[in-house]
Amino acid sequence: MKNIVIKNLMVAGLLTIPATMWAYTLESPGKIVSLEADVKDGIPVYSISYKNKPVIKSSSLGVKLVEVPDLTDGFEVVGTQASSFDETWTPVWGENDSIRNHYNEMVLELRQPSTDRKMNIRFRVYDDGVGFRYEWPQQRGLDYFVIDDEMTEFAMTGDHTAWWIAGDYDTQEYNYTESRLSEIRDKMSSAIDGNASQTPFSPTGVQTSLQMKTDDGLYINIHEAALVDYSCMHLNLNDTTLVFRSWLTPDAQGHKGHIQSPAHSPWRTVMVSDDARDILASNLILNLNEPCVYEDVSWIKPVKYMGVWWEMIAGGKQWSYTYDLPSVRLDETDYTKVHPLGQHPANNENVKRYIDFAAENGFDQLLVEGWNVGWEDWFGKSKDYVFDFVTPYPDFDIEMLNNYAKSKGIKLMMHHETSSSVRNYERHMHQAYDLMDKYGYNAVKSGYVGNIIPRGEHHYGQWMNNHYLYAVKEAAKHKIMVNAHEAVRPTGLCRTYPNLIGNESARGTEYEANAGINPGHTTILPFTRLQGGPMDYTPGIFEMNISTFNPNNPAKVNSTLARQLGLYVTMYSPLQMAADLPENYARYMDAFQFIKDVPVDWQKSIYLEAEPGRYIVAARKDKNSNDWFVGCTANEDGHTSTISLGFLDKGKDYEAVIYADAKDAHFRNNPQAYSIVRKKVNSKSKLRLTAAPGGGYAISIKPVNL
Amino acid sequence: MKNIVIKNLMVAGLLTIPATMWAYTLESPGKIVSLEADVKDGIPVYSISYKNKPVIKSSSLGVKLVEVPDLTDGFEVVGTQASSFDETWTPVWGENDSIRNHYNEMVLELRQPSTDRKMNIRFRVYDDGVGFRYEWPQQRGLDYFVIDDEMTEFAMTGDHTAWWIAGDYDTQEYNYTESRLSEIRDKMSSAIDGNASQTPFSPTGVQTSLQMKTDDGLYINIHEAALVDYSCMHLNLNDTTLVFRSWLTPDAQGHKGHIQSPAHSPWRTVMVSDDARDILASNLILNLNEPCVYEDVSWIKPVKYMGVWWEMIAGGKQWSYTYDLPSVRLDETDYTKVHPLGQHPANNENVKRYIDFAAENGFDQLLVEGWNVGWEDWFGKSKDYVFDFVTPYPDFDIEMLNNYAKSKGIKLMMHHETSSSVRNYERHMHQAYDLMDKYGYNAVKSGYVGNIIPRGEHHYGQWMNNHYLYAVKEAAKHKIMVNAHEAVRPTGLCRTYPNLIGNESARGTEYEANAGINPGHTTILPFTRLQGGPMDYTPGIFEMNISTFNPNNPAKVNSTLARQLGLYVTMYSPLQMAADLPENYARYMDAFQFIKDVPVDWQKSIYLEAEPGRYIVAARKDKNSNDWFVGCTANEDGHTSTISLGFLDKGKDYEAVIYADAKDAHFRNNPQAYSIVRKKVNSKSKLRLTAAPGGGYAISIKPVNL
Repeated sequence: MKNIVIKNLMVAGLLTIPATMWAYTLESPGKIVSLEADVKDGIPVYSISYKNKPVIKSSSLGVKLVEVPDLTDGFEVVGTQASSFDETWTPVWGENDSIRNHYNEMVLELRQPSTDRKMNIRFRVYDDGVGFRYEWPQQRGLDYFVIDDEMTEFAMTGDHTAWWIAGDYDTQEYNYTESRLSEIRDKMSSAIDGNASQTPFSPTGVQTSLQMKTDDGLYINIHEAALVDYSCMHLNLNDTTLVFRSWLTPDAQGHKGHIQSPAHSPWRTVMVSDDARDILASNLILNLNEPCVYEDVSWIKPVKYMGVWWEMIAGGKQWSYTYDLPSVRLDETDYTKVHPLGQHPANNENVKRYIDFAAENGFDQLLVEGWNVGWEDWFGKSKDYVFDFVTPYPDFDIEMLNNYAKSKGIKLMMHHETSSSVRNYERHMHQAYDLMDKYGYNAVKSGYVGNIIPRGEHHYGQWMNNHYLYAVKEAAKHKIMVNAHEAVRPTGLCRTYPNLIGNESARGTEYEANAGINPGHTTILPFTRLQGGPMDYTPGIFEMNISTFNPNNPAKVNSTLARQLGLYVTMYSPLQMAADLPENYARYMDAFQFIKDVPVDWQKSIYLEAEPGRYIVAARKDKNSNDWFVGCTANEDGHTSTISLGFLDKGKDYEAVIYADAKDAHFRNNPQAYSIVRKKVNSKSKLRLTAAPGGGYAISIKPVNL
Repeated sequence: MKNIVIKNLMVAGLLTIPATMWAYTLESPGKIVSLEADVKDGIPVYSISYKNKPVIKSSSLGVKLVEVPDLTDGFEVVGTQASSFDETWTPVWGENDSIRNHYNEMVLELRQPSTDRKMNIRFRVYDDGVGFRYEWPQQRGLDYFVIDDEMTEFAMTGDHTAWWIAGDYDTQEYNYTESRLSEIRDKMSSAIDGNASQTPFSPTGVQTSLQMKTDDGLYINIHEAALVDYSCMHLNLNDTTLVFRSWLTPDAQGHKGHIQSPAHSPWRTVMVSDDARDILASNLILNLNEPCVYEDVSWIKPVKYMGVWWEMIAGGKQWSYTYDLPSVRLDETDYTKVHPLGQHPANNENVKRYIDFAAENGFDQLLVEGWNVGWEDWFGKSKDYVFDFVTPYPDFDIEMLNNYAKSKGIKLMMHHETSSSVRNYERHMHQAYDLMDKYGYNAVKSGYVGNIIPRGEHHYGQWMNNHYLYAVKEAAKHKIMVNAHEAVRPTGLCRTYPNLIGNESARGTEYEANAGINPGHTTILPFTRLQGGPMDYTPGIFEMNISTFNPNNPAKVNSTLARQLGLYVTMYSPLQMAADLPENYARYMDAFQFIKDVPVDWQKSIYLEAEPGRYIVAARKDKNSNDWFVGCTANEDGHTSTISLGFLDKGKDYEAVIYADAKDAHFRNNPQAYSIVRKKVNSKSKLRLTAAPGGGYAISIKPVNL
């Protein structure tokens, strides 16, 4: 770490021990957020306030252990440390090309006299929130221990409005429910719909990041940062007291963590502001993560891609090659002897067609799913040796297609669906990465659909969290970027491991083709899911009536076309897909121009308007030019913006191309009605723009070259 | 498979459908063993008889499944197949240089009309017993299924005497208990003593191979063959009815097998004879395994070895390098900065001393344990990243020592203790094997001490059985031989994968240094544990009073010295250790000569005398010469043999060197009293020899070169 400024905060007056009920108080650098901590009756407690308003009421801290005394009470404070930190760092990719990490820090050193064990709690207080974590110094009485559960409380100050999804050990792919905290229990059953692997655990259990709003206008967000070798945290609400308690994901034996000291928990984070835009702009999660561990990051590059994908997701075509095989044994099945079902999209001709289209339109990569043997019985069988990740189907000429793509200036993107058979994936991972090296792949979309093998483990437990990071680190040895689907929700690890270029970990566009996505979904995700890192949301659907190309699928996409463009700006990611079929884009090439133009890496980002569940308007400046891009997404009520372009360089002229919903557009019955307007603008311009219900807009703003 | 003779047994009269209570009867080639099978009231049943004496009474067959109807009843016979097989095959190594596989076979094709599912039961009847297995043809209604338990019964004909160890999902390292079947329950608690990982499951649960003897002198042995991708079978006794039922090892979720059809269970085996020696001589288990899958087996060679091992096991020295580290992080701990504890046997000088001694005395290899970093906290912590298998301690110069060994004409043997952290082992396996390639190791002793990670899995469940075989197959790609300790008990897989050169899987010599081994233990193991494959029993202890070299350890080895020599013959293994310290051998170089002389691969083996729990006398002819070797082991009562040397070539003169207990020898108070006598013998000679209590003898018999 560079540019570290450590001061004695006692001397600097940052850490005060007032004669109040709280023994220790730590303020943020701008004195906006205040953290109070103490040990009361032997129990560590903390509270948080924002501009003197309470945010988290007095809440206890501690960890219950298996077989040995808990680390929940009987503590005394044996020391404190305080410091300040101010550093500006440069992400490999991101919403901004530099990020300031500025906080005051306090460590509460605790000792449990009855057991002579020590535990520290480290607090970092920022102007936009607080992070704290448990630390277990190496010590003879606590070298190894097993967590029964973490007992961290987050005591709410009232019956806030929350945007939540059901707590679940195996999926995050739910629509959000907006409700009062007190209504969570009643709404839980309707909040849960079917998924390939799901394990809800409590009628008042919810996931992080959890976005809330108080009746007096405070936006509060609870999440975690730097989830490494630990179990993912959920929140379980006591809806009588309105106190959330941490609820970790268990392992196959019901335990929630195997810890070797010295160790620490992930950071528990509370973001707070009276302006919703600050929550979106916050870098608290990234800042609480460790700096990048890679010396060379030149090989990590943002990616705009298309995919042989929507044909299967929405189009009803198959990843598999044949119907002949009720079950496959990879070491025995001879695919050259089966009858191809004849509609397998990952075939040479079709892939070449996509390559041509993607290359012509300036994309970086083309994802091809269903290229490898094993899809005939890949799901729901708890099958161990389900894929080998190296053997193509007979109709996918891996060498030819990679050469063809290369000749057109693009790369193929690898696909590693694991079917959650994780031992099998690790057994084949190195040969799989070697194959990628051989043919020039530099990015892989991995997937973890279905129940985990080793059986009894969960997607978000310590075991799997260890695996996801292992896959990322091993990929880095091959200069491979990873976009892991169905993996644990991100917690900012992309700062430390920036080849973790994307994750799914929420309900993405694929659901538009089946269970459906609420129109307001994308007005919530940036507050919640995106706090931890980019999402491979796969926007860009232009044909909202799936039946147009798949008569068997009556699904309709709950979005206007213009909003699909806006998502490339509102849903920050260094990995952006244009998810629809080439033939659907071909019908709207004027609108497709925005997807071709929009960058995937940024110099600067500004949130112009935001309200969770309602609308988000973001403006971002291209990392490599002076072009700006604006995006809006709105819920089913639509949204009218009046945005000022004050972020543009003063005195410069720009041309804006505004891709907006037509006046009569509506996500439900007229989603493809849009207008494209060109307009000269400058830093003094104001634009009044209307997003239709379930709509949005997108603007590219380029300096006029005189 | 070569030399296959298949006939229509109906035509040949081998398969008969008599008008008795049994629909199907199949006799062994020599008409010694008879198998009856039928479906009665929808339930498949079988029985076995030997020379018209019942061995297994009518016993039901079936499998209980999870979530779908069981495969236990409601069956009808829809077809039968019958055939005969007679082949002689050549093992890569073994007790004999060729093995005849001669059986009659019947397949009972079953259908369950209510579910339209099919299951076959394949029986093979040999003159020394029966093997049968379940087969699940590929079928839409049974592509994948989960076993709740296998319901195979073995109904005993009486309250036999049994030599048994407690059924346990995680250890086999118990002393045997000899009792009536009806006494198992009462003796169970005393049959179980502590172990690093143990999970007994029932007061009447026992392990296979289970050796029994009926009151009228039949020896019956129940085991399994070819345990692949299935859970290990235990036996649970209904001690009212005296019916054993199969009891599979569960996974972390309590399930007992995930099966993909087409599939089959391992063979369930019943060996039977009225002569105990036939049980020892039986090749039924090997014959039921598949032929060797490797094209090139030239790299697989039997091994006689010494080890830097007994110093730690008995001598109280440490595998670990330092006491400074309460816990180790392999990626952070710097061993060059710690204080060595100074008695770490795997150091350059000590290893060179062993190399010198082993090389001087004609050994092939030297095992070195404790060579690699991580031993400071390797056990009992449920630690995931416990070893990396490639980094030596600072005092072990891997390159120098391998070169030194090579210069002396021997190899070092690798040691991979996994601490049962199996994901970690698989993650590092390839780099570990690569390291072995680099330095010229061609054999590894692996270990699985402690509870399994993935947590909740057991040593003998399908998950781990899959792992053990994976390790063997991957090792074969590097031409590495595997000797896996604490792995599942062998079931003859060494025929198919002959680089599986040894296993522990029972209480071995190491226990002489702590919990103790019953004096009769080695008169039982060949009947039980060795049925499935060789054991790395590690005989050859010459100093019975451990306190002689470790004042802190009062343990005494329950064996005479002469018996320790006999074990090299009675305990067949292509991998034999001379386990004691060089300095202990140095004091008895005349007796040590036998260990130097005894081969580890054989042309022919003959069991001269045998009674489980009492004594075993075996004679074996060296594979590469005309030398014969005889060994005897006896229980606490001792044993007097009169053996005829009729196995020697007629008309040839031999010199026998007889290593026998002295007259006053006794395992308890005079174990090191032995005599060495040279004697001219020929095929007409008879020798009267006495094994002391807990004693034995060994004889080398070499042709006299005129």
